Amino acid sequence: MQNFEYCNRTKIIFGRGTETRAGSETAAYTKRILLHHSGGSSVRSGLIDRVKASLKNAGVEWVELDGVRPNPRLSLVYEGIELVKKEKLALILAVGGGSVIDSSKAIGLGAANEGDVWDFYERKKTTEKALPVAAVVTIPAAGSESSISSVITNEQGPWKRGVNLECTRPVFAILNPELTFSLPPYQTACGVADILAHIMERYFTTEPHVELTDELCEGAMRAIIRNARTVFSGGETNYDARAEIMWAGSLAHNNLLSTGRVGDWASHAMGHELSALFDTAHGASLSILFPAWIRYNITHGAPRFARFAAKVWGVDGAFYDFEQAALEGVFRMENFFRSIGLPVKLAAAKIDPSRIGEMSQRAVKFGPLGNYRKLEQKDVEAIYRIAAE
Amino acid sequence: MQNFEYCNRTKIIFGRGTETRAGSETAAYTKRILLHHSGGSSVRSGLIDRVKASLKNAGVEWVELDGVRPNPRLSLVYEGIELVKKEKLALILAVGGGSVIDSSKAIGLGAANEGDVWDFYERKKTTEKALPVAAVVTIPAAGSESSISSVITNEQGPWKRGVNLECTRPVFAILNPELTFSLPPYQTACGVADILAHIMERYFTTEPHVELTDELCEGAMRAIIRNARTVFSGGETNYDARAEIMWAGSLAHNNLLSTGRVGDWASHAMGHELSALFDTAHGASLSILFPAWIRYNITHGAPRFARFAAKVWGVDGAFYDFEQAALEGVFRMENFFRSIGLPVKLAAAKIDPSRIGEMSQRAVKFGPLGNYRKLEQKDVEAIYRIAAE
Repeated sequence: MQNFEYCNRTKIIFGRGTETRAGSETAAYTKRILLHHSGGSSVRSGLIDRVKASLKNAGVEWVELDGVRPNPRLSLVYEGIELVKKEKLALILAVGGGSVIDSSKAIGLGAANEGDVWDFYERKKTTEKALPVAAVVTIPAAGSESSISSVITNEQGPWKRGVNLECTRPVFAILNPELTFSLPPYQTACGVADILAHIMERYFTTEPHVELTDELCEGAMRAIIRNARTVFSGGETNYDARAEIMWAGSLAHNNLLSTGRVGDWASHAMGHELSALFDTAHGASLSILFPAWIRYNITHGAPRFARFAAKVWGVDGAFYDFEQAALEGVFRMENFFRSIGLPVKLAAAKIDPSRIGEMSQRAVKFGPLGNYRKLEQKDVEAIYRIAAE
Repeated sequence: MQNFEYCNRTKIIFGRGTETRAGSETAAYTKRILLHHSGGSSVRSGLIDRVKASLKNAGVEWVELDGVRPNPRLSLVYEGIELVKKEKLALILAVGGGSVIDSSKAIGLGAANEGDVWDFYERKKTTEKALPVAAVVTIPAAGSESSISSVITNEQGPWKRGVNLECTRPVFAILNPELTFSLPPYQTACGVADILAHIMERYFTTEPHVELTDELCEGAMRAIIRNARTVFSGGETNYDARAEIMWAGSLAHNNLLSTGRVGDWASHAMGHELSALFDTAHGASLSILFPAWIRYNITHGAPRFARFAAKVWGVDGAFYDFEQAALEGVFRMENFFRSIGLPVKLAAAKIDPSRIGEMSQRAVKFGPLGNYRKLEQKDVEAIYRIAAE
């Protein structure tokens, strides 16, 4: 086990009706905020009105900026930064999923620091300063509501880049599973893939003795898979199943599950190229690339993948032939993804395999990918080709 | 799943050599502190000298108060409060196990509030104010280093009482598993029992759908049991096994594992009477009373106890006869406790069964015990009698 630091200061407020606390929780910080959202389903569902009523009750004034899209755009972030500065706002309240929260984090970074906010995403500079962000979460997926991560797409490239900064961790996050009842099935499925991927990125490590966190990762993955099956078996409004997935979504990405180990993150980086070039949903990019990544690496670490197959996917025989057990695990994972409507191959996501060379080159712009096994451009290309088979 | 709030602000600094950071972490808060410890093994091992060197390097001045014993005494707490007030100290740094940390929390409470600090433990008043406490942990057990709990023994009764106050949660906790290599086996064993009990108190709930946290609890318990076996099989200086137990000790009691559910806590309350009257080590009181508590309740909730037997103790057949499977689980738990040198019956801890009546009466002083099943005095007495068999 490696030395580590762990601290997560986000206050989680979880359960039915909790969005009504947005106002009082915000008022503990400031009375002037940016209210940031998509302008889509959160408006139609009446959620934005309920949040506004809560803010009003608590005497909090807001300026509104909507229009956030999946793979949130840098141009809107710039707009938000200007607005926050001009209106002297002191907190950004995100109402939405990971895209809205990530966009809010970028605005909080840009408003509190001089210069171009994109420089943080290009790793040209770093900071310990940001305006506070808080979230009312509508999609269990990114775990951004209690993480230090933010991923933004710069349309000029297009480039999709992520940054991890402690100062962007939300001060509070409101999670009401009822808000996820009406999610379109594809969005629920993408969220499930994203949550599983956040755990898998941490789970696949070369650190030999991380038994407690291995157990926690495996247990969380099993709970997510079982409850996703419930939701996709007519359980769209099953509160408990939705609640398990939603809480798992936060825990998957709050860094508890990576204590004492180094995660991999190659699949996320490869997936970002699909999103940047083809606007593929983040979760779908992961349901395609994670199985391909495992298939490519199976001979490199068969016992680990066999354990994953046995503990998470119930594969028997893991002790006889590691590679066979590992492969059976990948099959089951692919079947699970397909069963909830996700692509597991590039073709199913309408991605043109002729651009694999370009994607591979872009993916390694900052150097080799991953930690479980360092991937050079030729490895990345081979993985994209497995996904194209 | 019930609505919940979850937030844990303790900064965990985990790993080899981390006690050298005590000074710099403390200096972020203040330069004048109370250094609180037992005066025993932490001095003999040279740890206190290393911590002092670290404080000195960081320009932190300290006043020292040692003499903390297991089942920490109120009289020493009073002494600490006077010292902190007189010397105008602004933080209490605990170097030791749960007793030292709990004593530090009580001092922090007493120094920041008017009146008698014992009133908080008697539930006569509450507060949101306390001086900050931090910890260098030497015994994985109580989880006090990131919890809101503090348990103190008032010699006047004697009464052993606990209080849960957010303001007492340590601001940082340094956990170096190397510091636990030299623990006497009995202390290691008591710690293991305490950690398992903290999870079991949360695990045994009547809340029907808490699947994610069930999985996390079960995984953590398996990891603790396996790694305890390693330590007790000649692995006293096995860093990884010690590290798994130490990190589990914090997670077991930081409230993550009770999100969405109500825990039980009857066994802890019954155990406190053994400690108050016979000075039984806390962990030993739990290795005696938890099996007895399960045996008494088995017919009341056999499926839950059967699941516990199957998932944590590897009992097969859980789906055929719940009561039989549950009983087999208790047998295995008792065998495990015995195998690491702990008592599972009152006689083994030299506790006089003639005082069961008195203990039962004292245990329910504040009303019935537990939430999994409310225990009246007659139930408590029956459980003590099972432990006396």
